[in-house]
Amino acid sequence: MGATFGRNLRLTIFGESHGKGIGMILDGLPPGTPIDEAFIKTEMARRAPGKNKMSTQRQETDVFILESGVFEGKAAGTPLCVLIPNSDQHSKDYSILKDKMRPGHADYAGKMKYRGFNDYRGGGHFSGRLTAPLVFAGAVAKTLLRQKGIAVGAHIARIGRVTDVMFDPLGEPEARLNALREQTLPVLDESRAPLMEAEIMAAREQQDSVGGVVEVMATGLPPGIGDPFFDSLESRLAHALFSVPAVKGLEFGTGFGIAAMKGSEANDPMRFEAGCVVTTSNHNGGITGGITNGMPILFRVAIKPTPSISRPQQTVDLAAGSDTVLEIKGRHDPCIVPRAVPVIEAVTAWILQDMMM
Amino acid sequence: MGATFGRNLRLTIFGESHGKGIGMILDGLPPGTPIDEAFIKTEMARRAPGKNKMSTQRQETDVFILESGVFEGKAAGTPLCVLIPNSDQHSKDYSILKDKMRPGHADYAGKMKYRGFNDYRGGGHFSGRLTAPLVFAGAVAKTLLRQKGIAVGAHIARIGRVTDVMFDPLGEPEARLNALREQTLPVLDESRAPLMEAEIMAAREQQDSVGGVVEVMATGLPPGIGDPFFDSLESRLAHALFSVPAVKGLEFGTGFGIAAMKGSEANDPMRFEAGCVVTTSNHNGGITGGITNGMPILFRVAIKPTPSISRPQQTVDLAAGSDTVLEIKGRHDPCIVPRAVPVIEAVTAWILQDMMM
Amino acid sequence: MGATFGRNLRLTIFGESHGKGIGMILDGLPPGTPIDEAFIKTEMARRAPGKNKMSTQRQETDVFILESGVFEGKAAGTPLCVLIPNSDQHSKDYSILKDKMRPGHADYAGKMKYRGFNDYRGGGHFSGRLTAPLVFAGAVAKTLLRQKGIAVGAHIARIGRVTDVMFDPLGEPEARLNALREQTLPVLDESRAPLMEAEIMAAREQQDSVGGVVEVMATGLPPGIGDPFFDSLESRLAHALFSVPAVKGLEFGTGFGIAAMKGSEANDPMRFEAGCVVTTSNHNGGITGGITNGMPILFRVAIKPTPSISRPQQTVDLAAGSDTVLEIKGRHDPCIVPRAVPVIEAVTAWILQDMMM
Amino acid sequence: MGATFGRNLRLTIFGESHGKGIGMILDGLPPGTPIDEAFIKTEMARRAPGKNKMSTQRQETDVFILESGVFEGKAAGTPLCVLIPNSDQHSKDYSILKDKMRPGHADYAGKMKYRGFNDYRGGGHFSGRLTAPLVFAGAVAKTLLRQKGIAVGAHIARIGRVTDVMFDPLGEPEARLNALREQTLPVLDESRAPLMEAEIMAAREQQDSVGGVVEVMATGLPPGIGDPFFDSLESRLAHALFSVPAVKGLEFGTGFGIAAMKGSEANDPMRFEAGCVVTTSNHNGGITGGITNGMPILFRVAIKPTPSISRPQQTVDLAAGSDTVLEIKGRHDPCIVPRAVPVIEAVTAWILQDMMM
Repeated sequence: MGATFGRNLRLTIFGESHGKGIGMILDGLPPGTPIDEAFIKTEMARRAPGKNKMSTQRQETDVFILESGVFEGKAAGTPLCVLIPNSDQHSKDYSILKDKMRPGHADYAGKMKYRGFNDYRGGGHFSGRLTAPLVFAGAVAKTLLRQKGIAVGAHIARIGRVTDVMFDPLGEPEARLNALREQTLPVLDESRAPLMEAEIMAAREQQDSVGGVVEVMATGLPPGIGDPFFDSLESRLAHALFSVPAVKGLEFGTGFGIAAMKGSEANDPMRFEAGCVVTTSNHNGGITGGITNGMPILFRVAIKPTPSISRPQQTVDLAAGSDTVLEIKGRHDPCIVPRAVPVIEAVTAWILQDMMM
Repeated sequence: MGATFGRNLRLTIFGESHGKGIGMILDGLPPGTPIDEAFIKTEMARRAPGKNKMSTQRQETDVFILESGVFEGKAAGTPLCVLIPNSDQHSKDYSILKDKMRPGHADYAGKMKYRGFNDYRGGGHFSGRLTAPLVFAGAVAKTLLRQKGIAVGAHIARIGRVTDVMFDPLGEPEARLNALREQTLPVLDESRAPLMEAEIMAAREQQDSVGGVVEVMATGLPPGIGDPFFDSLESRLAHALFSVPAVKGLEFGTGFGIAAMKGSEANDPMRFEAGCVVTTSNHNGGITGGITNGMPILFRVAIKPTPSISRPQQTVDLAAGSDTVLEIKGRHDPCIVPRAVPVIEAVTAWILQDMMM
Repeated sequence: MGATFGRNLRLTIFGESHGKGIGMILDGLPPGTPIDEAFIKTEMARRAPGKNKMSTQRQETDVFILESGVFEGKAAGTPLCVLIPNSDQHSKDYSILKDKMRPGHADYAGKMKYRGFNDYRGGGHFSGRLTAPLVFAGAVAKTLLRQKGIAVGAHIARIGRVTDVMFDPLGEPEARLNALREQTLPVLDESRAPLMEAEIMAAREQQDSVGGVVEVMATGLPPGIGDPFFDSLESRLAHALFSVPAVKGLEFGTGFGIAAMKGSEANDPMRFEAGCVVTTSNHNGGITGGITNGMPILFRVAIKPTPSISRPQQTVDLAAGSDTVLEIKGRHDPCIVPRAVPVIEAVTAWILQDMMM
Repeated sequence: MGATFGRNLRLTIFGESHGKGIGMILDGLPPGTPIDEAFIKTEMARRAPGKNKMSTQRQETDVFILESGVFEGKAAGTPLCVLIPNSDQHSKDYSILKDKMRPGHADYAGKMKYRGFNDYRGGGHFSGRLTAPLVFAGAVAKTLLRQKGIAVGAHIARIGRVTDVMFDPLGEPEARLNALREQTLPVLDESRAPLMEAEIMAAREQQDSVGGVVEVMATGLPPGIGDPFFDSLESRLAHALFSVPAVKGLEFGTGFGIAAMKGSEANDPMRFEAGCVVTTSNHNGGITGGITNGMPILFRVAIKPTPSISRPQQTVDLAAGSDTVLEIKGRHDPCIVPRAVPVIEAVTAWILQDMMM
């Protein structure tokens, strides 16, 4: 199970890295929603690998085919199915992975779950490639959010040892959130970009990988979105965000930092401003009681270094029943954080749109 | 919405702090599951306030009534309804809260969502009191997990500036996990308990509150539990944990720390040990690809300081349409972290049991 | 499982006939929905047994307690929990039912499902008494539908060999639908009522029971409600209606009669009337493609004779492992059809309201 | 919404009659489930039109492409996506349908729901063609049921004025259920087949269509499958069956006939037979209290005559805002009942398998 999520804008994903294709069904789009293929392509290009030396050289063209649900350029209201055919598959590369488990990867857990019947080639269903359909869904959701004056943006808050400055918790201008989309390494302090690139290239040279943190902001949400308890906005965002491969942490507002604070510091003081209720700090990341309070949504996700590296690693050979050293030749992705940015944004946009319907 | 969660062990909660009562329905319990009322009472007593100076003095007796689903001391298999009548209600205390919004609390977000129709007294449905039914559900789930050799334990990893040592990521003995239940302030290094108590009492004297971090471990899970993507174990735990009021952060394994690591450090090396596959580190917190890998589940949650404090606070008066200073006389909870420990444990046990069915 | 249904107005029921109490949680009510206790009581009285010789003499007072979700007479927007305490329990009556299975009843199927752990007294969770919470939910839904100009009414179309005339498929005046609520035996042709009563009393004298058919109409629905396929209005009504104990058949519009028709007869011709699109016949019962077409919703449900009868019946004794004859002394319900009418109406109102949100 | 249904074997469908393609995702298949393409093709051929004069001449090749979830001929355990490309599309045929609503069809209800954005060509998403993916899902489910000794079979109980004999409610041999699959018109009394064919051909000559009834039996189910109330087997079968286009009625066991019976007649007497509990009649269709009792599942569905006919029909022109007469030239399906048989069977198999997991 696990292929479907969403209450009002229900997303179902499918596919394996080395099968015929991957894709998704998006059910619940308002009839008439513009399906802006040019914008979707731009968003998907942000995620696609192979663009520069900082990512894997696997060419994923991510050409998508609209199988259903779109009529004359607009959402018909019926289930929208997108198919992304696989190409550039080097299945032979992966035969070694049938029994030798990559440390840190889903290989072993997946093999136990599926009792050996799953497609192990290139990670199969666990491949990061499965995030491409999420980006499609997010691009459509962004179109709908934009109509409501809601903007979603993200930057790389950290790669390895290099950090960026953080978003102003009280809000960033929409133009600044949008401008981040244009940057190869989306950062607020552009002087950090070359340092991050150096961090990535160093990992690459060492046949290693490096992790990072992505910070996300959404502005323009009205107060009152979300529910107490099991449909809290934090719960549903967390559910979707932890579905993205490699996410290992999530914190809203001041997050773990709030644990060291006093109530008198953490409670965001409230006041009227131009007839609206605002807070003068935003330690709660725009959400109290699981519900938006009208301030910007703010959170950070921790992304682990991609586990597929070329360095020799200690692992097990399940067929032989013995310990072994695994060495995978060839290209790999030294840092997935830049490519994770549009995915995290997309998931955020999808859930926000879902919860506003 | 938001009252119901769970796939196979579905929990629905209800109630307001100052209504007739609160409670829950638990649907999907295997027929014959022992309903150990003595154990449940012990668990609920761990959460109940009023036991010592470190918590609010509100006496919540948390007497529970089994309305349905239990027959001759065992789960009948039909929906189990538990009612916890409210008592010790001081509704008059709260009249001030009708229009003056407590900063950091759900008051404003809730009022916007429910358009002013919700019961504002004592936080109403947003009250921390609603976590009592979760503890009931968790106690039943623990009974079932214990039968499978699975133990769940938690300690206070931080209160304000005081930290505890952390769990050994490779696992703690079940006895140690269980022993934590007996401690007023469950910590691994008992020398930290008085320091934490001092931190709490200092906050109390300042009419303030203080936050913290809870660390959770579950041992004994077989590999293969969880699904990729939207039913990943991390997704479902995150969904339920962020439903607990005051939780603002969650990290699995090394969590945010993994963002600064290399793949060669973060990838947990694998080897055979007594015929089983184990890892020699546990940066992934027992979960890869959203699925258990047989190592202990390990995560931490950040708890914000309770927003209800007695110090004067800057806020708004919605009826007057003006800024104001709110001062709430009387008792409050200087630190909910100790009482959050059994709640976080309970939610963990519930979700683990749900996903093993 | 099976305690919860509904997408936007989610109902969860609980309880056993001879436990402490039964009840329900209704989640998703618009904040401010009037909770008209007087109207709810009238609706519940229609279902309650013991009012006359045509029903069982068990006195079910059906007093309800609003545990949560109602504040100052209106829905707070939070989960509304209603508790209906059990009374007039004669548990001793039922000891015979522990091992001797009533033919036609859920006894055997339930015992197999719950492996003998379920409460067998009085049918336990399978008791028709569990329909009382449905009537509560339906009464609240009717309040909301009425605000939108939607009326729901039902009559007894058949009891045993006696039939009523049928609703005019093109619609009945709201007043007529409402007037049916006042009749002991709600029929369109009042001359049939005494004949139906005679049919019931004859069954009673023979220590037997008799079944029937209920016909339901809902007027005032706009076109466009429902979805294709799995959320078709027919699917969701059918799901909920077949959850009502004793329902064994359901047909929309001309129903089974349509099987013998030609397309040219069954296709309801369309035309404009006062600017609205109407049909000049209503063989489709107001639903095409799973979606309302603006004509009245019309369907019939078949209700089987209540299986609890006093006549000796051939059955099995599971403890003895042998065939036996079961004879249950005392009162039973010779015909549940009149009491099923408000239940069927209530379920209809709940689902219609759910699908219009 | 409405594209997804199922608890443990979750099916999501997509597609429009004249888009790129249609298909489905099946999530939750046990890893290793054989995907028997030859068997699936046979099943899909039973549904496909264009085989003889009794159906529409539209050639739907129903070639399917396994996009994901199958590895080395077996289910991988991950979401199985099947794509069925559209071909033989004559979109020009349908331009007349943009504004002129076919009586009895989903045209008008769908246009209201989707506010005119849906693909109206050939019925779009409402096309009977969307049942092809259901047959695929059912074929896989049948494979799993067969492993458990469960057989599902169906026959045409009625077409227009011609009826077949009915199944023996106490059970049919598996061989007989399977043999029905081989018949062009699956009937128990083969002498009825030519009469039914004549009924269909007469409708065809009159440019008209004719409805019918399908009767379904499933044998081999153990007692205890299903849940009380909202997950009753009847509820879930009804939900899925009423999702099939053209289904207007459903009755279990004796169905509407039970309404005229006494309890003493309708209660199926129980006895031991070869150590098992059986009933000596089966008026309840194998289900009591929503749960299987070990007897064969038995039900009938009413299928309305296909609304697409060539005869002139009275309807509305929404663009002109006036009444009009619609005349659709060319081929249509004089009777969908024979092709509905494998669809109804498939849905039954899917839901039974889902509820046994």
